[in-house]
Amino acid sequence: MAEFFHVLTADEFIQLMGCFGRLASEQVHLDVSLGRILSREVVSKEDLPEGARSTVDGFAVRAEDSFGASDSIPALLNLAPAIPMGEMPGFTLQPGEAAPIPTGGFLPRGADAVVMVEYSNPAGPDAVEISRPVTIKTNVLEKGEDARLGESLLLPGRQLRPQDIGFLAALGITELHVGRQPRVAVISSGDEVIPIERKPGLGQIRDANGHAISALIRTCGGEPVPFDIVPDDAAALDKSLRDALTTADVVTLSGGSSVGTRDLMVDVVSGLPGVKVLAHGVAIRPGKPTLLANQAGKAIIGLPGHPVSALIVAQVFLVPFLRYLQGGKLEKGPLGCRASAALATSIHSTIGLEEFVRVRLEGTPGQYVAHPVFGKSGMLSTVVKADGIITISMNAEGLPKGEVVSVIQL
Amino acid sequence: MAEFFHVLTADEFIQLMGCFGRLASEQVHLDVSLGRILSREVVSKEDLPEGARSTVDGFAVRAEDSFGASDSIPALLNLAPAIPMGEMPGFTLQPGEAAPIPTGGFLPRGADAVVMVEYSNPAGPDAVEISRPVTIKTNVLEKGEDARLGESLLLPGRQLRPQDIGFLAALGITELHVGRQPRVAVISSGDEVIPIERKPGLGQIRDANGHAISALIRTCGGEPVPFDIVPDDAAALDKSLRDALTTADVVTLSGGSSVGTRDLMVDVVSGLPGVKVLAHGVAIRPGKPTLLANQAGKAIIGLPGHPVSALIVAQVFLVPFLRYLQGGKLEKGPLGCRASAALATSIHSTIGLEEFVRVRLEGTPGQYVAHPVFGKSGMLSTVVKADGIITISMNAEGLPKGEVVSVIQL
Repeated sequence: MAEFFHVLTADEFIQLMGCFGRLASEQVHLDVSLGRILSREVVSKEDLPEGARSTVDGFAVRAEDSFGASDSIPALLNLAPAIPMGEMPGFTLQPGEAAPIPTGGFLPRGADAVVMVEYSNPAGPDAVEISRPVTIKTNVLEKGEDARLGESLLLPGRQLRPQDIGFLAALGITELHVGRQPRVAVISSGDEVIPIERKPGLGQIRDANGHAISALIRTCGGEPVPFDIVPDDAAALDKSLRDALTTADVVTLSGGSSVGTRDLMVDVVSGLPGVKVLAHGVAIRPGKPTLLANQAGKAIIGLPGHPVSALIVAQVFLVPFLRYLQGGKLEKGPLGCRASAALATSIHSTIGLEEFVRVRLEGTPGQYVAHPVFGKSGMLSTVVKADGIITISMNAEGLPKGEVVSVIQL
Repeated sequence: MAEFFHVLTADEFIQLMGCFGRLASEQVHLDVSLGRILSREVVSKEDLPEGARSTVDGFAVRAEDSFGASDSIPALLNLAPAIPMGEMPGFTLQPGEAAPIPTGGFLPRGADAVVMVEYSNPAGPDAVEISRPVTIKTNVLEKGEDARLGESLLLPGRQLRPQDIGFLAALGITELHVGRQPRVAVISSGDEVIPIERKPGLGQIRDANGHAISALIRTCGGEPVPFDIVPDDAAALDKSLRDALTTADVVTLSGGSSVGTRDLMVDVVSGLPGVKVLAHGVAIRPGKPTLLANQAGKAIIGLPGHPVSALIVAQVFLVPFLRYLQGGKLEKGPLGCRASAALATSIHSTIGLEEFVRVRLEGTPGQYVAHPVFGKSGMLSTVVKADGIITISMNAEGLPKGEVVSVIQL
């Protein structure tokens, strides 16, 4: 317990998280791959489309037959058989012919362009007039133009979106290799903490952390594994941590807002077999007492006990870490949509601490004004009232009123 | 079938969607409420905290006993019993006393402020020196300061975030009323369309739409209900639509990129019992042939057959509609994070059509450059390469190079 832990910067803390190996990949069906992160490159096994297709309703032609056509002097072409959907036309289009073709229809051999139906006029049962010239490939999606056999379609690290799923579906790629989703043990500790279903006795508080952190874990693809609330007792905490380490890929532990219980948490984590405490203390506000340890390759993240601090630390470190474990890149959180806003008031900050300030947004996108949310640090209502967070760097004494800041919406 | 449908603007189309009633609400446990939309106001049933708590480690005092204290002339106070976590102190703090208190500890009667431990010095076994004065309520979270009995905490229409869940957990609110999640039938049609597991025969294509639209439905809390692919046959389409209308809350139908199959879709939808076709045709590109009908209060949305157009139309209309049905406000999509970017090239556009242009983003936030993604309209690879979409209003002939645009990231 006599180890010395220096306080790290948030960037150093994130770097340290990179020492953990990513989770193994697993194969999943395309239909359950939304939001998952690819662990292998996806390569096309065929050409898309497999043959030239029309992108409009009209007439498949040989482009040269349309040259010079106009409203006053249309080209008169003989009708070839109409091309049905769902079939590859069996005939070859001869010079001087036009074949009716629907959007998506495959071009017959010999055809190299499509004239839109708007630029045609019927000319008896066997012929059609074309009033506009087309060049080769006009209104045609060529074989392999969307995807080519052997082409790299998507790279590892990509998080799958609906459009990616549509593209892979079109190519018949129904199985994907993605990073496994981490099981994350969520342990709340503290003699005063009780399950949320219970009415607190005098001096007790409900376990807000367990539920907020579990929800946050879900937002980034993790599976929260809730553990029973642990009292401030070394043996109980040790047992809970050991259970969690056998069950889960990552262990989060919150509690210990007072110095005494924080010390207990550090002592118990330090005493686990083969554990290495990587960091105890990060130069951020809120969240200074954050702890990071490595036990046989599994991360233990000790969050502050204050629910507000615990949430912000989890947004800064835990969410990016869980994405990293699944194959994403490691970056400092909070991760979210960023909006520019002018600060409504100046904000003081302490040199040497990176600060995360809750703000409300007023106005409309492009003209937002960010109002710091006032309230004491332990107030959960402040994170509920906030639309997002701004960060103030370690080297700044604060930010002046009117400064344009980047608000991370959460 | 002789009805006349005028082409609507996208805004008119969205307005029309507002004629559908929202889904009933349902009661869910807090732990599965992430991302759900509240259908009832949440009111606090108690005060949080239920008594005054310390926000720091230190000494609970009567503020007046600290007045005038300094490093050179500290206030000497008698030690009262230490306050344990998880208990309401049973004693009353007397004038001239200080009680050790941990962060989160409840103040004893008589105490009205807390001095941080940093500003204290031990003075023998029974006393402590205080070197800073505190005013009343310093380092104290008052009873009800975070939430007050009877206070409105969250309003209907709010989508629940992890921090909201933490706040409600702290207040013991474990059951919530949220909008039911819509079951959305996904029907793909077309003689040429085959399941994605099959190798296309000559002229066939795989059902990209069904899978992309299903994934998109999941992103906004809907439950996709996939139906078998329907051939271009009125009786088969009619049967599938009737089945879907009995099973699902919303029916989406894609297919019909050619004029013939589009007409078939309209005819069959128009022929359903008690149906009212609200719109057939929207002045947008891509997506003009979009259809909206109301059958006994359920919406039928006919999407274009082109997978790219179907996806964009679903982002513009279906996603906001599904959020609206769950209790969200009705707004025009695409919904997503917005980033400012300078256009890399000028873009032409047609007056009278609202255009949705796929763009790639280069550079870093705040300095993004948006590059239109080139490629023919039917190419799925274009939506995969795109980071987002910009909209060009109906009244614009295009956008000049360098124009600062709002990119909706998708």
